[in-house]
Amino acid sequence: MRARLFTPGPTQVPERVQVAMANPLMHHRGVEFKALFDEVIDGLKYFFQTSGTVVSLTSSGTGAMEACVVNLISPGDKVLSVSGGKFGERWGQLCETYGADTSILTVPWGQAVEPDAIKKYLQENSDIKAVLLTHSETSTGVAADLQRISEIVHEHSDALVIVDSITSAGVLPFKMDEWGIDVAVTGSQKGLMIPPGLAVVALSSRAWERVEQTTTPRFYFDLRKEQAALEKSATAWTPAITLYMGLREALRMIREKGLENMWTSYALLAHATRQGVQALGLELFAKSPSDSLTAVQVPASMDGLKVVSHLRTAYGITVAGGQAQLKGRIFRVSHMGYYDALDMVAMASALELTLRDFGWEFEFGKGVHAVQKVFLESR
Amino acid sequence: MRARLFTPGPTQVPERVQVAMANPLMHHRGVEFKALFDEVIDGLKYFFQTSGTVVSLTSSGTGAMEACVVNLISPGDKVLSVSGGKFGERWGQLCETYGADTSILTVPWGQAVEPDAIKKYLQENSDIKAVLLTHSETSTGVAADLQRISEIVHEHSDALVIVDSITSAGVLPFKMDEWGIDVAVTGSQKGLMIPPGLAVVALSSRAWERVEQTTTPRFYFDLRKEQAALEKSATAWTPAITLYMGLREALRMIREKGLENMWTSYALLAHATRQGVQALGLELFAKSPSDSLTAVQVPASMDGLKVVSHLRTAYGITVAGGQAQLKGRIFRVSHMGYYDALDMVAMASALELTLRDFGWEFEFGKGVHAVQKVFLESR
Repeated sequence: MRARLFTPGPTQVPERVQVAMANPLMHHRGVEFKALFDEVIDGLKYFFQTSGTVVSLTSSGTGAMEACVVNLISPGDKVLSVSGGKFGERWGQLCETYGADTSILTVPWGQAVEPDAIKKYLQENSDIKAVLLTHSETSTGVAADLQRISEIVHEHSDALVIVDSITSAGVLPFKMDEWGIDVAVTGSQKGLMIPPGLAVVALSSRAWERVEQTTTPRFYFDLRKEQAALEKSATAWTPAITLYMGLREALRMIREKGLENMWTSYALLAHATRQGVQALGLELFAKSPSDSLTAVQVPASMDGLKVVSHLRTAYGITVAGGQAQLKGRIFRVSHMGYYDALDMVAMASALELTLRDFGWEFEFGKGVHAVQKVFLESR
Repeated sequence: MRARLFTPGPTQVPERVQVAMANPLMHHRGVEFKALFDEVIDGLKYFFQTSGTVVSLTSSGTGAMEACVVNLISPGDKVLSVSGGKFGERWGQLCETYGADTSILTVPWGQAVEPDAIKKYLQENSDIKAVLLTHSETSTGVAADLQRISEIVHEHSDALVIVDSITSAGVLPFKMDEWGIDVAVTGSQKGLMIPPGLAVVALSSRAWERVEQTTTPRFYFDLRKEQAALEKSATAWTPAITLYMGLREALRMIREKGLENMWTSYALLAHATRQGVQALGLELFAKSPSDSLTAVQVPASMDGLKVVSHLRTAYGITVAGGQAQLKGRIFRVSHMGYYDALDMVAMASALELTLRDFGWEFEFGKGVHAVQKVFLESR
């Protein structure tokens, strides 16, 4: 049985990236790596649609989130953290850990934050230093209206807009400079299509000014050290070299296809999957679904953990279950990464077979048909 | 021309490890990864010769050093940091960054710390909380007498013995439990023979008690979170999965050969290289040389940067130059990693050719002969 990875990180890795990473290792202070590194940084600027500064880190995406907090927020700084899922919660935990005066705007899991709720908060708290947001909340499959929120924040405050774009950059339309995003982070195993182990922070010039003023102690994630290293086409610490080798190739693929085409493709994969799932009588968990992944509610008659396990053992398909309070209640299918229309057809087919194995009543073939129909009509 | 990597990190990666990392990616929360992870943790305990707790991190070795400081040292804690090179300095910088009351015992670069100097300090400062040491100082090629120092620290204080064993674990004799080492760290691109991107912290039970009491804020490097994850055969954050796939294979190779045989082999490679270098009339930089790498003094008549560059462009051999004040004055050749006797013969041959290109006067062939002779006599 062939193994197929549909988890919203790590995602399927392109063959070209696999081959690039299998090449002999190079030294990270030599001319070969420096040329590779410069190309990667350039590609990442395109990826984020920014002319700002892009810093890469050897860590998970959480490491990049920590880099944001320790470099941009000083103890006692007043910040607003928007939380509508596990990753939104993480911003709040980080801010509290490092001593920020943290207000949490809680949004029910499955819903997107109302831009007006942020506006209301800012009208009463114009002295806020940063607003921390999640563009695509991976735990719930919800996308926020980032462009509108960024406008509101800049209209009503001087706060930095700091965005977890871990499952949105490269996947959903994301225009850092045009939208006035000050800081954006991602991890390598999402829209960048390579294995996990690298993370990226992109910063506006306003954000860089803040980095210099921040008093929170930091070392490994000190962006000032990374900035100094950038001038020598290097990272401050020994980087995960093989992942950079893969990243160069992935960024070449993204450029070849074009970012806007990537966004359109992902939107289509997500739309088709949503149509397929609903044709089977299942419900989506997210009220404002992200196109990077689809969170599907498991019918009350079934154990979600068993559904996820059965997809893997019977059909070789790995999807992600629910996290925290959603454990056993949803499963999540990735669209971001190296997927095409036929992958989503295969996914829908395995889902139909699984539902049948669990005794769910539906017209067999209807899910796959709905998925196919979307692709037919999009041509 | 074939490229040969002789840098003291990253080191040459075995073919078996390359192949393991080229396998399809797996999800880090699935059964397949959990089994792999458990085997890795078990292998790392063997590697460090400890029955303590071993935590793996997605970061460079510096990240693991930061994890030691933020988890084991509280602001105001009195600590002694021994510094005889760039990496010893890093301990001190980390301690100062996070607010420790830091005393630095400075040792001239190229020399090993005198155990009696530590004894003297402890006799006057019995209230010290931790002693931070470098076992094999990669910037100078010097090895410290770690076993003796650990004895002294325990005899004269309750301080934790925290060791940067980044280029010693798996390479030099290193017996964590037997020698009373409380904390040891390494990076993946050294004795573990895989590419960079992972780091490891091994802790005694005494050290774990300290982790619970430490007040320094931490999040990404919070070892309490990693301990909780360990119970589920997982890491707290998304791990660099491909590197774990390589690490399992590397640890299998180390077990197959046996750690004591690894130590003996490395000692022989280092001894042969030192004989070869000296037979050419060059001098070693380290007074107490580490067997993990050899630091060679560049004759005053030559530019060290050019020697390093020529070795690479003319003969395909990448060695490391000197760092900080040693820039241009030394070059460093790795023995740790996937090397055998014939690799060191090749290295010596390229060095002879380079010296000849630079007009150095010596009996051509004498270096290679000295290297060969060591291997012949060791059979």
